[in-house]
Amino acid sequence: MKKLNIAIIGLGNIGSYLYKFLEKNKSILSKKNNCVPNIVYISAKNKRRKRNFKIKKKLWLNNYLDATKSKNVDLIVELIGGAEGPAKKLVFNALKNKKHVVTANKALIAKYGDKLSRIAERNKVNLEFEASVCGGVPIIRSLKEGLIANKINKVFGIFNGTSNYILSSMDKENKTFQEVLDKAKQLGYAESDPSADLNGQDVSAKLMILSSLCFNSFLSNNIHVEGIKEIDKEDISYAKKLGYKIKLLGYAELIGKHIYQRVHPTLIKKSSYVASIDGVLNAVIIDGTPVGQSIIQGEGAGPAATTSALISDISSILRGNTKFPFSISSQERKNLNFKKISDRSFSAYLRFEVADKPGVLSNITQIFSKNNVSIKRLVQDPNKGKRSSSIIIITHPSKDKSLNKIVHTINKRSYVKKRSKLIRIDEK
Amino acid sequence: MKKLNIAIIGLGNIGSYLYKFLEKNKSILSKKNNCVPNIVYISAKNKRRKRNFKIKKKLWLNNYLDATKSKNVDLIVELIGGAEGPAKKLVFNALKNKKHVVTANKALIAKYGDKLSRIAERNKVNLEFEASVCGGVPIIRSLKEGLIANKINKVFGIFNGTSNYILSSMDKENKTFQEVLDKAKQLGYAESDPSADLNGQDVSAKLMILSSLCFNSFLSNNIHVEGIKEIDKEDISYAKKLGYKIKLLGYAELIGKHIYQRVHPTLIKKSSYVASIDGVLNAVIIDGTPVGQSIIQGEGAGPAATTSALISDISSILRGNTKFPFSISSQERKNLNFKKISDRSFSAYLRFEVADKPGVLSNITQIFSKNNVSIKRLVQDPNKGKRSSSIIIITHPSKDKSLNKIVHTINKRSYVKKRSKLIRIDEK
Repeated sequence: MKKLNIAIIGLGNIGSYLYKFLEKNKSILSKKNNCVPNIVYISAKNKRRKRNFKIKKKLWLNNYLDATKSKNVDLIVELIGGAEGPAKKLVFNALKNKKHVVTANKALIAKYGDKLSRIAERNKVNLEFEASVCGGVPIIRSLKEGLIANKINKVFGIFNGTSNYILSSMDKENKTFQEVLDKAKQLGYAESDPSADLNGQDVSAKLMILSSLCFNSFLSNNIHVEGIKEIDKEDISYAKKLGYKIKLLGYAELIGKHIYQRVHPTLIKKSSYVASIDGVLNAVIIDGTPVGQSIIQGEGAGPAATTSALISDISSILRGNTKFPFSISSQERKNLNFKKISDRSFSAYLRFEVADKPGVLSNITQIFSKNNVSIKRLVQDPNKGKRSSSIIIITHPSKDKSLNKIVHTINKRSYVKKRSKLIRIDEK
Repeated sequence: MKKLNIAIIGLGNIGSYLYKFLEKNKSILSKKNNCVPNIVYISAKNKRRKRNFKIKKKLWLNNYLDATKSKNVDLIVELIGGAEGPAKKLVFNALKNKKHVVTANKALIAKYGDKLSRIAERNKVNLEFEASVCGGVPIIRSLKEGLIANKINKVFGIFNGTSNYILSSMDKENKTFQEVLDKAKQLGYAESDPSADLNGQDVSAKLMILSSLCFNSFLSNNIHVEGIKEIDKEDISYAKKLGYKIKLLGYAELIGKHIYQRVHPTLIKKSSYVASIDGVLNAVIIDGTPVGQSIIQGEGAGPAATTSALISDISSILRGNTKFPFSISSQERKNLNFKKISDRSFSAYLRFEVADKPGVLSNITQIFSKNNVSIKRLVQDPNKGKRSSSIIIITHPSKDKSLNKIVHTINKRSYVKKRSKLIRIDEK
C-alpha cells in the first residue's frame, strides 16, 4: 500500500492528541484511504515538557524547519499557532518546498491565506484548514464539497464556544459576566487569557475564512468586530423579557453586490434555532441556492473535536484529493465589494441608564426622531431607591450609523449615569 | 481543461432540474473542479412528456442502456428510481462497463448496494449516492470525509420530510392524520401515493445506508419498521401534556457488540433538539469518538436540494476523488451482529381505551406486573358521556417483547374498546 510521510510540528494538547490518535488508528485510516499515514517526524518548542506519551527518539526533530527540507516528508501538520513567527515560517517554507500542509491555525489562514494558497496551487500541493474553523463541525469540507453546487448568500452562526458558554450561563444562572468567566476558567472552557475569545477576534478570523469560501472572494479584513465584555446581566434579562436571547454571532452576507462581515452580540428571537444552541457548542448556518438552509452543529473546540477535523484533512490528502485551498483557483477568486456596516440597517436594542427627572424621556425620544430612527417599543423601568431609571428601546430597522450617533449624543448628556448600550437585533 | 462526459438517465422533476442546473453552472463547476462536466446524453422513458426545457436532439438517447456501452460516456447519473427494473439494469451495466455512477436511488442502494459496491471497486469507478439520503443534508460526504476519523456508536434523526410535516402539523393545528395528509398532498409535501413515506419504508432504506457507512458493515435488512398511520391526535395531545413530542425517527445504535436498527414513531422530550425540527426539514445526528455529537440539518427532498447533493457527487468525480462507495473496501466491511429489538429495553407510552367499569384498572396493572414492567406514570382520563376512559401509562425501561406482550394480552380483554397503543420513548 502507498504511504504518506507526515511530520507533526507542535505538541500541545492538540498535537499530542493527534499523534496518539494517528498511531492508534493507523490501520483503519489506511484501509479507508488506501494509503498509510506514516508519522516520520515530530517536533515542538520544548522537548522536555511533560506529555502524556513517550516521544520516540528517532521521530524527534531538533529543528522543526528541517521537516520542510526533508525529502522524507510529504505532509506537514502545523499545530504551533499564531499568525506570525514559527508557524508562519513553517507553513510558508513547507508549501514552497512542495509539502502538503494541514493546519488548525485560523489566525495564520485569515491573515496569509491568500498568499499561502497561491504557493500551494503553484506547487500542486494541498493546504487544508478544516480544523481552523469550529473544530468538530465539518463546515469547510461541506462548503468545498458537500455544498459545492450552491450559490451562497449568507453564512452565520455561533463560532466561539467560550463566549457562547458565558452568555448562556449568564442567561440560565442569572449571573454577571465576571462570575461566569471565573467559573468557565475553572471548568477549562476559557483559557487563562481568554481575550481573543471574548473580544470577537477568534470569531472574526473564522468568519473571514468562511466568507471567502462562501463567496469565492479573497480574504477581506473589512469586518466589524465587537466582543461580549460589555454585556451586563441586565441586558440579558431585559432581552429575555422582550422574547430574545443574546448571542455572539458572526455574519457574512451578500446583499445586492455588497458583502457585509460582522461579529457582535446580537438579540435573536428565543424561538429561533440559533438561540437554542447553548454551552460550548458551535453551529454554522448556510443559506444557499439550490440547497436552501443547511445547518451543521457540533463541538467547536478541544483536542478531540479538533483531531476529528485534522484527520479529515489528512485523509483527503491520503486519498490524493487535490483541491484548491479556497475552493477555486486564486486566478478565479474575486475582489468583492466588502462594505462597512454603517450604511446597513438594523433593528436595535438600546439601553439608557438615566437620572429620574422630568424631561429626560422627551429629550431621548427627540434625539431618536432627529436621527430618523423610529421607536418600536419603549420600556421605562425605575431602579428602586436610586432615583434613576433604565430606558429600554427597540427600534425599527435604521441605519447603523444613525443608531451609533444616537448613543454617542445621549452619552454626552448629563442625565446619563452609565455608558449607554446598543445591541443589534437579527431576525433569524 | 479535462472533460468528464455525463449521461443523465431519467428526466422527471429531479433529472430536469439537474440538467438545467448543470448547463447553467458549467463554467463555475469547471473552475471549482478543474474539469468540465460535459453532458453528452440524456434519456427518459417518455420523450414527449411535457418538460420545462427543450431537449436538444443530438443529446437524446432512444435506448437508455446505450449510455452504458458508449465509449463517449464516463459517468451515468441514474434518476429513474425503484430497486428493480430499468434502474437496476442501468446501474449494474454501467458499473460493469467501468462507468462512474451517481444515483439518488435509496431503494436500489439499500437492496443492492453491497453487490454494486463490489463491482465499482473491482472496476475502480465511483458509485456515489449522496442524494439518496436526505437530499440537502450532506451527510454521506460528511461521514465518508469530514467525520472519517470517528468511531460512530449511534446515528439517528428525522429522515422523512413528509411524515415529519404531518406529525408537526397534527401537533400545531390539533388536526387528525387524515386532515393533515390531505393538506400535505395539496401543498405538494406528500405524493399522491405517499405510502412509502408514511409506512417507514423510505426511512428504513436511508437508515440501512447510513448504518453501513457508520459501522463499516454490510447492509442489513434486520430492521424494525413502523410508520405513522396509527398515530391519533389523542396520542399527540397526551404526549404534549406529558412533555413530549411524537416524531418518526430512524435509529441505528451499536450497543455492546450488537447493532439495532429501528424506525418508528417515538416520544421525545419537547426540549430536545430533535423535537425542535418541524415541517419538511431533515436532521441527522451522529454520536462519535473523538468528535462528540454532530448534527446536520437541511431540506431533505425536492429537486433543488437533491440537485445540490447530485452535484456534490458529480464534482467529487470531476476532481478524480476515487473512493470506496461505503467508505472502506468490501473486503474490509464486516458482517456485524444486527439484532432484533425485542430484547432491547425501552421506556414506553401505552394508551388503552377501556370501558369505565370496576376492576379494569386493577386488571391492567396486574398484567403489567406479571410481565415485569413497572409503571412510572399513570393517567386515567374519563371520556365525557361515553362510559369509557383513556388510560395512559409511561413505563420504566422494559424489554420490548414484554411491552408488546402486554398490549397483545390487554387487546384480548372484553373491556378494551379500541386497539391499544404502544409508542417507545427515546431519551434524546
